[in-house]
Order: sequence, then C-alpha cells, then structure tokens
Amino acid sequence: MKVFQHERQLRTTGGLSVRDITEEVTEAVRESGVIDGIACVYSPHTTCCVRVNEFESGFLEDFTELLRRLVPIQTYYALYDGEKRTENICPEDMDFGNGHSHCMAMLLGTAGESIPVRDGELCLGTWQRVMFLELDRERDRRWIVQVVGT
Amino acid sequence: MKVFQHERQLRTTGGLSVRDITEEVTEAVRESGVIDGIACVYSPHTTCCVRVNEFESGFLEDFTELLRRLVPIQTYYALYDGEKRTENICPEDMDFGNGHSHCMAMLLGTAGESIPVRDGELCLGTWQRVMFLELDRERDRRWIVQVVGT
Amino acid sequence: MKVFQHERQLRTTGGLSVRDITEEVTEAVRESGVIDGIACVYSPHTTCCVRVNEFESGFLEDFTELLRRLVPIQTYYALYDGEKRTENICPEDMDFGNGHSHCMAMLLGTAGESIPVRDGELCLGTWQRVMFLELDRERDRRWIVQVVGT
Repeated sequence: MKVFQHERQLRTTGGLSVRDITEEVTEAVRESGVIDGIACVYSPHTTCCVRVNEFESGFLEDFTELLRRLVPIQTYYALYDGEKRTENICPEDMDFGNGHSHCMAMLLGTAGESIPVRDGELCLGTWQRVMFLELDRERDRRWIVQVVGT
Repeated sequence: MKVFQHERQLRTTGGLSVRDITEEVTEAVRESGVIDGIACVYSPHTTCCVRVNEFESGFLEDFTELLRRLVPIQTYYALYDGEKRTENICPEDMDFGNGHSHCMAMLLGTAGESIPVRDGELCLGTWQRVMFLELDRERDRRWIVQVVGT
Repeated sequence: MKVFQHERQLRTTGGLSVRDITEEVTEAVRESGVIDGIACVYSPHTTCCVRVNEFESGFLEDFTELLRRLVPIQTYYALYDGEKRTENICPEDMDFGNGHSHCMAMLLGTAGESIPVRDGELCLGTWQRVMFLELDRERDRRWIVQVVGT
C-alpha cells in the first residue's frame, strides 16, 4: 500500500476566483506511483474549497452571480461585529470583513473532493476539472493532495 | 490491502431525477471483499452528483422545488450565450441549455460521497440511501465506486 | 496498512446547533496509529452532517440565518403532508416536521468530510475545526471516523 502527499502553494486573485489545478493534481497522482486508489484533494482554508466541475468562464461567471445573490456581501455579519466578537480575531479580516466568504464556503460543502484513481489516472469525466475556489480576497493559499492505494 | 472498482451505467430521466443506487453499491462492497475501509461513490459528470440522504418522494419533491427556486432555469446564463462562448462547446447543450444544471451541481457540493465500510457493510444510518442525482436532461450516465481497505 | 474506526455518541441541542468535535477526532487519529492517510468523518443521519470550517459563534449565527432564509421552516413540505405520505413513516417526525432539515442537509452537501492525515495529525488549517451540525430538533446522534493509511 502507498500513501503519497503533495502540497502546492498559490497566490489567488480576489473576488470569487477559480484556479484550474487539474494538471498539478494529475502530476502528483503519477508521482505517487498509485495505480488504483483514491485521491483526496483538500483546502486547509476556511474560505476556500476544492471542487470538481467544468472550468468554463461563462459557467464560472454564472456561478459567481448565483453565489453573490444567495450570500450578499453587503449585509450585516455577526462575525464582523467588533462589538460582539471576542474569538479567533485576525486583524486583517476585521478590516476587510469576510463573513460572506465563510458562509459561501459552508454552503458550497466540504473543504475537498475525493476522486477515484484507476490505471494511475484520476477518474475525471470528459468535462470535469479539479478547481481551487477562492471565496475571499487575494491571498496566499495552499492545497494538499493525499493519494492512497496500491 | 484491497482496492476494488466497480462502474455502472444508467439512463436517467430528465428534470431533477434521483435514482436509488444503494443496492448496487452494497453489492459492489460485498464483491470487493473489503471488511474495513472507505467506499468512494463518484459521478464523473459535471451536471450529476452522488449524495446520501433519504429516498422519499415527498422530500425529493420538496428539494426539487427548493433547488429550482434558488437556481431558476429561466434566467440568463453566460454559459449559453452563443455570442460569448468559445470554450468546451457541446452542440447538443447549446440547443437545450444546462447552465442551471452546472450551477445546481456546484451548489450541491462534491461529485461524490465517501462512506465508511465496517464488517463488510456500508455504515449507512437507518434512513440513509445512496442516490444518483441527475440535474440535467435525460442522458446516459455512469457512476463509479472505489472501495479501499483491508 | 491500517484501518481504524471510532464511533462517538452525542445528544444535540435543537435548532441549528453545532458541536466542535475536533479534539475527539484528533484523539481517534492518534489512537489509530495511522501516520499518513485519510480520515473520513461521517454522520449516519439524514438531517445532520459533518463539516470543516471555523468554529466561531458570530459566523455560526450568520450561517444559521442564511440557511433559514434559503430554506424556510414555515413553508409547505410534501415530506410532511399526511395525506400524501406513505413511505418511511417515523411518528415523531410527523408531529414535529423536519422537511426543512432534510432540504438543508442536501443543500449543505455530503454526510461527511475526508481530511488528509500527515505525521499522525489531521491536516487542518489554522482556523479549521471539525464540526457536527444538527439541522433537526434535539436528538441522540452519533458520528463515525474511519482512518485509513500506513
């Protein structure tokens, strides 16, 4: 049995920005030597996530609009009420406010995606790409891929 | 250590249709010979997903209504603006339009579900069923289950 | 290769309540003896889920408000239409009604989260915590962690 981990850093652009990381994940799976198994691609950030879907600019524009409609930025977030907040304070976040980013991340689901690996390749469908989603402002980020198998 | 993969094909009905695939996934886990491990059930399509919840017609009706309210079909999707789109063109999709299906899939979360396996069985709760969700029109689809364990 | 399972029970409080289970999951990973692998933390309930995000009271208040706005409690749910429903009947649920809880669970995504394990520790980011979300009334619940690796 093999377990292989690869970590990669990136600088995101702000807004709702999406990076196609399929090639890098594919490379990591090849480097792992795992022929059959599972690849768990994971974001260790609370306002980012890894998702598998189509990487197409029109769709990403549509999705951004949907997410902004469901989770408005210009609303009151208790997370950034300076009067109330006493926990986990990060000064930079208090200035910019990212209550909506946390809510978007929770609504979107899990931090990562698990993808089957067969014959040494990710079992992605024709249009599927692995994407890193930034839901917050421009920041230094990283993602992890853990490959487990034989 | 064992890694077992099973793939199954299906023809979905259109609209938001849900297929209960619990029995087939359970069979695959038995066939895998894995006693303790993880089963990753995965949809390789960008407008479908695998989800674990109750398979009950009233609930699925409620959920369909919710999803259609949050992600309306009759709205403008940049993904299907023929003037703008230049990437990943699938002629059939340009006729029918499935911008809303992509948005629904992203909102729902990951492509698959990972379920613990114990004593050779999926650790599903009393009401939990494994379901394949079609968010697009009637199509030929497939799902994959990857079982990893001892 | 090692596969380790741990199960824990809890009594939730009603409403949308969130329990930080990070310490218990961390302990289970240590007990597993797995140094490198994947931890799959799973809810076997249809109206709960396990999610990784920040455990901060303001954010959880914001998220509760968002979820209640998107999935109102005071609406008609076919799941609890006594005239129509004939499947999977649980008498207590027919009294209280938890159609909205099922819809929230589906909207939130999968039942569990998969987290990479490295050097015997969960690869959680600075602000990430593992949380058990109750979307229904006060109930007896349980969660499972399955650790697979070397």
